[in-house]
Amino acid sequence: MVEPATDTKTATKVVPLLKDELDIVIPTIRNLDFLEMWRPFFEPYHLIIVQDGDPSKTIKVPEGFDYELYNRNDINKILGPKASCISFKDSACRCFGYMVSKKKYIFTIDDDCFVAKDPSGKAINALEQHIKNILSPSTPFFFNTLYDPYRDGADFVRGYPFSLREGVPTAVSHGLWLNIPDYDAPTQLVKPLERNTRYVDAVLTIPKGTLFPMCGMNLCFDRDLIGPAMYFGLMGDGQPIGRYDDMWAGWCTKVICDHLGLGVKTGLPYIYHSKASNPFVNLKKEYKGIFWQEEIIPFFQAATLSKDCTTVQKCYIELSKQVKEKLGKVDPYFDKLADAMVTWIEAWDELNPTGASAKATNGKLK
Amino acid sequence: MVEPATDTKTATKVVPLLKDELDIVIPTIRNLDFLEMWRPFFEPYHLIIVQDGDPSKTIKVPEGFDYELYNRNDINKILGPKASCISFKDSACRCFGYMVSKKKYIFTIDDDCFVAKDPSGKAINALEQHIKNILSPSTPFFFNTLYDPYRDGADFVRGYPFSLREGVPTAVSHGLWLNIPDYDAPTQLVKPLERNTRYVDAVLTIPKGTLFPMCGMNLCFDRDLIGPAMYFGLMGDGQPIGRYDDMWAGWCTKVICDHLGLGVKTGLPYIYHSKASNPFVNLKKEYKGIFWQEEIIPFFQAATLSKDCTTVQKCYIELSKQVKEKLGKVDPYFDKLADAMVTWIEAWDELNPTGASAKATNGKLK
Repeated sequence: MVEPATDTKTATKVVPLLKDELDIVIPTIRNLDFLEMWRPFFEPYHLIIVQDGDPSKTIKVPEGFDYELYNRNDINKILGPKASCISFKDSACRCFGYMVSKKKYIFTIDDDCFVAKDPSGKAINALEQHIKNILSPSTPFFFNTLYDPYRDGADFVRGYPFSLREGVPTAVSHGLWLNIPDYDAPTQLVKPLERNTRYVDAVLTIPKGTLFPMCGMNLCFDRDLIGPAMYFGLMGDGQPIGRYDDMWAGWCTKVICDHLGLGVKTGLPYIYHSKASNPFVNLKKEYKGIFWQEEIIPFFQAATLSKDCTTVQKCYIELSKQVKEKLGKVDPYFDKLADAMVTWIEAWDELNPTGASAKATNGKLK
Repeated sequence: MVEPATDTKTATKVVPLLKDELDIVIPTIRNLDFLEMWRPFFEPYHLIIVQDGDPSKTIKVPEGFDYELYNRNDINKILGPKASCISFKDSACRCFGYMVSKKKYIFTIDDDCFVAKDPSGKAINALEQHIKNILSPSTPFFFNTLYDPYRDGADFVRGYPFSLREGVPTAVSHGLWLNIPDYDAPTQLVKPLERNTRYVDAVLTIPKGTLFPMCGMNLCFDRDLIGPAMYFGLMGDGQPIGRYDDMWAGWCTKVICDHLGLGVKTGLPYIYHSKASNPFVNLKKEYKGIFWQEEIIPFFQAATLSKDCTTVQKCYIELSKQVKEKLGKVDPYFDKLADAMVTWIEAWDELNPTGASAKATNGKLK
């Protein structure tokens, strides 16, 4: 049986890497007591809390954390009619936090995720490992059998082309979970007692051309490199599906990373996932997705972007057109989603102006 | 520091899986004392020893092992003029053992590889893990973030398409090495003291379309599914390169597995690799390969096989033509290699007749 770390107060204080360049985004509907266990690792950072559901409820944040909190009223006020692209009553609303951040890096974590222990019993500073992952290159063009060649004690093995050893910038670091694995409802129902106790001491690049199921529970990315692709779609209240928000973002992100020559890593760090969500509720949210993904995945596997798509925004708009054209036939939901993808990019660009126009509009939110 | 297992006599006797369906192929130039440590795991199996170099030398095999041994004279006698496709004075000669085997599975291991220990200190039965890898399916079409979904305690994660959960047959299981990592000469020279001490408790499928550096030190495969692609090329005596035998086999094998819908797994099991080869000697063997691989790898990445290529043999002959056409320009060596690829297939088919003709010629070697 795996257990979470229960005393992180004694964890060695580390120099907080990228302290002024990274925001932690947390979607929540409850008080954030889980932050107590993360205090030694998260306290130096700024938090962006996106309150899901009833905006009249007060979310308590433990003392000492530096944070800004947005509820639905704030989202509506800031985005106006464009707020329609942000999901309501679903943790997919977290992507609003990505949009309002002014930092280069985002780490996002769920509020039922605790500090895990490595096999030696040491509390794992998940954020530090994500930062290591994202600050070292990725190797999407050829597989290295000793995994991430940039980790201490590892390198490129015999037969690895020297021209590829510089790697490419890493846009995404996807972390894993001990205890409750991230299973779909059918697997939860079939294996209610399965726990992930296997600590795999590896980080690896997901090869170019290969899609993966990106989970939003324990995820870090570079906003400058890939931020506008990290849209978590239309889920929850008023939508026909849930629990595909991170999957959607992962498929879009991977296709765009492959097109732009950026890397996606998965593996370490682990967090301790404390509580399985209700499989019956999940099944209701997922069942259309389970059916649709059989068409969505081949769509993304076959998707190609034109040479003109030189920015994430251009890639994303191009992808939204293909979604409308090809997935619109599967269900009218995808028409709506394709429109929301465009709205998302418009909202992103409004809140994140670049170049000359940036000076004029920057700070509008302050 | 990692250490090999020094007392495997106490290792629990296991039921030898696939005892009558697997041969262990060992290329060697010395007495096979290393087998003592492997006795509890290898003794139930049949060994095929391919003696590299001077055929007048006698190779001692520890008592109790069931084996057949082939030296250069035997190879010449059995293959006649086709023996030209088998390398001399190079461990690439091991592929002769693949050809003469009559079993479904091959495990091949180098004679400087000892029994490794897992993190709990237990001696690792590498062969047993390979068999587990190869008897369970592979998942080349979509990445599973919890690695091999068929291992105990693991499964497919949320977002993994259900239509892909049956997987495809596994053709190759590529194992890794603790202690001396499999580095090329330049890396050996730069990092003479680096040792691999990281035990990564994972097996994973190398995705479709992704090449990898296949090492022949600790390798298992299904002869029926992929055997004829496991040609280790022309290396060593009289050839301009060495140490690319397994790489060549790996590139060809992966392209053909991708074409035929077969899987390649890498990761567990580990063996303990005891001794780094001389980096100066290695550099001499490798330097052309280091240069050539910059053209060879893009060639294999772009290689496609026609629909008519429905057997490994047909795929391999088709690949040999492409090698001649595209890599012949790089160096005349590849012309010679392309011819040897054809000779290899002819020799393979002669020793491994199938169908109606099999009855007539089978047992010719006995």
